[in-house]
Amino acid sequence: MTPDHGDLLYEGKAKRVYAASQPDRVLVEFKNDATAFNAQKRAQLADKGRLNCQISARLFERLEAEGIPTHYLGLASDTWMVVQRVAIIPLEVVLRNIATGSLCRETPIAEGTVIDPALLDLYYKDDGLGDPLLSEARVRLLGVVEPEQLSAIEQLARRVNDVLQPLFADLDLQLVDFKLELGFNAAGQLLLADEISPDTCRLWDRRSSDAQDRILDKDRFRQDLGGVMEAYGEVLKRVQASCADPRNCM
Amino acid sequence: MTPDHGDLLYEGKAKRVYAASQPDRVLVEFKNDATAFNAQKRAQLADKGRLNCQISARLFERLEAEGIPTHYLGLASDTWMVVQRVAIIPLEVVLRNIATGSLCRETPIAEGTVIDPALLDLYYKDDGLGDPLLSEARVRLLGVVEPEQLSAIEQLARRVNDVLQPLFADLDLQLVDFKLELGFNAAGQLLLADEISPDTCRLWDRRSSDAQDRILDKDRFRQDLGGVMEAYGEVLKRVQASCADPRNCM
Repeated sequence: MTPDHGDLLYEGKAKRVYAASQPDRVLVEFKNDATAFNAQKRAQLADKGRLNCQISARLFERLEAEGIPTHYLGLASDTWMVVQRVAIIPLEVVLRNIATGSLCRETPIAEGTVIDPALLDLYYKDDGLGDPLLSEARVRLLGVVEPEQLSAIEQLARRVNDVLQPLFADLDLQLVDFKLELGFNAAGQLLLADEISPDTCRLWDRRSSDAQDRILDKDRFRQDLGGVMEAYGEVLKRVQASCADPRNCM
Repeated sequence: MTPDHGDLLYEGKAKRVYAASQPDRVLVEFKNDATAFNAQKRAQLADKGRLNCQISARLFERLEAEGIPTHYLGLASDTWMVVQRVAIIPLEVVLRNIATGSLCRETPIAEGTVIDPALLDLYYKDDGLGDPLLSEARVRLLGVVEPEQLSAIEQLARRVNDVLQPLFADLDLQLVDFKLELGFNAAGQLLLADEISPDTCRLWDRRSSDAQDRILDKDRFRQDLGGVMEAYGEVLKRVQASCADPRNCM
């Protein structure tokens, strides 16, 4: 079901953003397109849009319940979300609780190393440049955010981690690392934006000891492990079961 | 002429380090090997060792005269230098006064942009990993230096820039960017180490307005522009002429 919407404002790799009837809101449609390695690898995965939309909705609700400001306002359908309109900050904020992926390719830190406190990596959100890692000095030079905004971004990202890590742990899911995007709404408030899903979080199943079977995130697609949507479905099932517990939900 | 030396302690891409008779000193031999792109491109350039050794010697002397502690003790021959033995910190410290090279490939900053104050980039010194850029958070995680040491490294690197920029400007050379390596001697003192030469500095000739002709550094080798050693020779000539002025030299 496609809800009423205005003009297409922006199309990304995984979502489309449309104008809504209220100017301070937009509608986000989650697509079934899967991409990896800066879109060099592409596929259509039936039901991905719904799974990511529903997982994100539940997680945004939980974060809001914990006092973390997000752009989320509600669902408009299975694959559509209503959110506050924000100016996205062109930074990908990655928090890493366990070393894997590019961190282990770019440094001598061993795969699986526990990182506590989490490592916060900033990447410049620019597909043409391949989303390069930024030092704080390069962030300042690029002028993408003011120094005090950068500090607020880091604090908010760490609060998200402080909520999501135990939340997933209760679902027998290990939050290995995740990418956040943030933005400012018309009032200048910093909000968590984008999505929180197996596309943006590495999640390892604590119920499995097999290094491949335990992967319940986009690495299944990146590494051609198969069962991508089954994994995303399992994440939604656990997140929904948690939300069925009235102690956990709004 | 090969001076008396002890065992080979270390061989890098451009230099060999030998034991000296005194345990707190080592002898450094500058080689004619030229490498670029993490040693994927290689050549032998006759006289490069001598040119880089002599240029570095003059520049270390000038830096010492300005109160900047370096490992340099003296020349042992045309291509050999006596230096204090230091434990090299595995960081490549790059200061950028004008945007070019990897900075412009990795960010939207336009070629030729003046950067003031200079951008300080830290790279992890590891050929196997391709000397990756590090954020300060990654430096802390790797534990390569203590936070207060990192601050001392940054201060020293900026002092070097404050001396070298006007020094080269007086020679009609624009110091575009440069790479430093630093180390601690047995007494725990932080010293500027390695070399300072057209292999490690980008130098543009202010007497030329042509974007290729003005390049007097390793970019001539990287970009196959020819006249590599002529360019290095021109740099040595100017640095020596400056040192012939008694106001400039020790």
